[in-house]
Amino acid sequence: MSEAASAPAVRATVGDSEFDRDTAVTRRSPGVYDLDLSAGWTIINAVNGGYLLAVVGRALADALPHSDPFTISAHYLTASRPGPATVRTETVRTGRTLSTGQASLLQYDEDGKEVERIRVLASYGDLDALPDDVRTSAKPPPLPPLDQCLGPADGPAPVEGSSAIADRLLLKLDPATVGWALGQPSGNGEIRGWFGLADGRDADPLSLLLAVDALPPTAFELGLKGWVPTVELTVHVRCRPAPGPLRVFLTTRNLAGGFLEEDAEVWDSADRLVAQSRQLARVRLG
Amino acid sequence: MSEAASAPAVRATVGDSEFDRDTAVTRRSPGVYDLDLSAGWTIINAVNGGYLLAVVGRALADALPHSDPFTISAHYLTASRPGPATVRTETVRTGRTLSTGQASLLQYDEDGKEVERIRVLASYGDLDALPDDVRTSAKPPPLPPLDQCLGPADGPAPVEGSSAIADRLLLKLDPATVGWALGQPSGNGEIRGWFGLADGRDADPLSLLLAVDALPPTAFELGLKGWVPTVELTVHVRCRPAPGPLRVFLTTRNLAGGFLEEDAEVWDSADRLVAQSRQLARVRLG
Repeated sequence: MSEAASAPAVRATVGDSEFDRDTAVTRRSPGVYDLDLSAGWTIINAVNGGYLLAVVGRALADALPHSDPFTISAHYLTASRPGPATVRTETVRTGRTLSTGQASLLQYDEDGKEVERIRVLASYGDLDALPDDVRTSAKPPPLPPLDQCLGPADGPAPVEGSSAIADRLLLKLDPATVGWALGQPSGNGEIRGWFGLADGRDADPLSLLLAVDALPPTAFELGLKGWVPTVELTVHVRCRPAPGPLRVFLTTRNLAGGFLEEDAEVWDSADRLVAQSRQLARVRLG
Repeated sequence: MSEAASAPAVRATVGDSEFDRDTAVTRRSPGVYDLDLSAGWTIINAVNGGYLLAVVGRALADALPHSDPFTISAHYLTASRPGPATVRTETVRTGRTLSTGQASLLQYDEDGKEVERIRVLASYGDLDALPDDVRTSAKPPPLPPLDQCLGPADGPAPVEGSSAIADRLLLKLDPATVGWALGQPSGNGEIRGWFGLADGRDADPLSLLLAVDALPPTAFELGLKGWVPTVELTVHVRCRPAPGPLRVFLTTRNLAGGFLEEDAEVWDSADRLVAQSRQLARVRLG
């Protein structure tokens, strides 16, 4: 495994890492949290949608009696900006094995008026309380070894403008799915790659919310160049991820009428399917 | 096409059918709707989750400035019962092409106390305003002709107890995916079939919310016999369906730790992928 070659000499740990600091929330009152959206998780000027979901997910983990997002759905309303923000949560139902909560991520406009960025509905549970058994035979799709995959330093800058998030991720794409970066998109709606955090922090359920939305969009391989804003993103976290890099597989089957779905599967180093997600995104057709 | 053989002599129309009557809502005040959950859409004593989503979807279609559910997520909190219910909606954001709303389906317990059944978050738009183009090459999976598929009358009763919903549906399953009904589940997480409404009403965006959750669960083909309650169900409606029966394809890749995901694809008679859904469901492992 070539992971060591790319990993930093001193690995950050869960709880003490860039990702943890940048998704930290401070409880102002029961169910209400203050935070700062970091500029470190932006692509051009857009704050990454998976990072936003992780921030809200952390607030809900504090507000609800269960700590792991089993299924979390976000509807993206307006574009978030780096800076101060608030998460307001509501406990919808508390059960023995699952609790359901709702949350709003809010920012303020120039007049100090509250603007809602995303609205979230989620059911939380305890991943460690689940039995270990896997009844199905799904296998991870093939992916070349990490040292044969390509990162931002291996080719021309694929997207103009700054991409601060690239510095915080260890992202290595299957060479078969980087044609878009060379002006030769495959026409297939697939992007595959290795995913980790640049400071070596291992994955946990919250960072999986980032992992499903951190690769280049499948739209690029379908020959589209513009921005593909997420309308809605739902993530199922199915298992606590084992240490080590993750494999992320994105697939789009239906680009039609100006919208597309993007499905993600995330597999861990123990070959467990640890997260599944689907998003509906808008495309600007050329 | 053998459809005519199974269809009623006089076909119900959109707006005047069992499905329309049983999902009707009456506006009590702005954003608040009264309704009666029909006993006609139950399996044993459980009210079908897709039917419930269609009821809430109809209320949101009235409350929001757009009428078609583009993406709708429901978290199922407590078991609904046939009888009076209320839907309370909130308009979260109104945009030019999309509006986002939230809704709660409520019933009352024996003491008259409000109990929330499902909480829904949805973004609505106008399907007729979308361009017609399809950029991807996804094709519907193969399915034998309708007259070679099997309905409830073609075999032993697969589920003990009454299944009122069976009388309201035209459901014909691929013989390759009915092994469960004969005590010989395939072990594959797939169920495929033709879907229509028994009174001949054609599909529309609201009935697609029912279609994605109306077939027997994939869990049966995976050898599980118990109830598989939905935790969360998200549906993307991608296109207004053409007249004629629908083809519905269910797939489960990951049954693990007591949960499974069930994906549905719905194709119309014009070979358009009209809806996609994913749900997270709980299973009781034997």
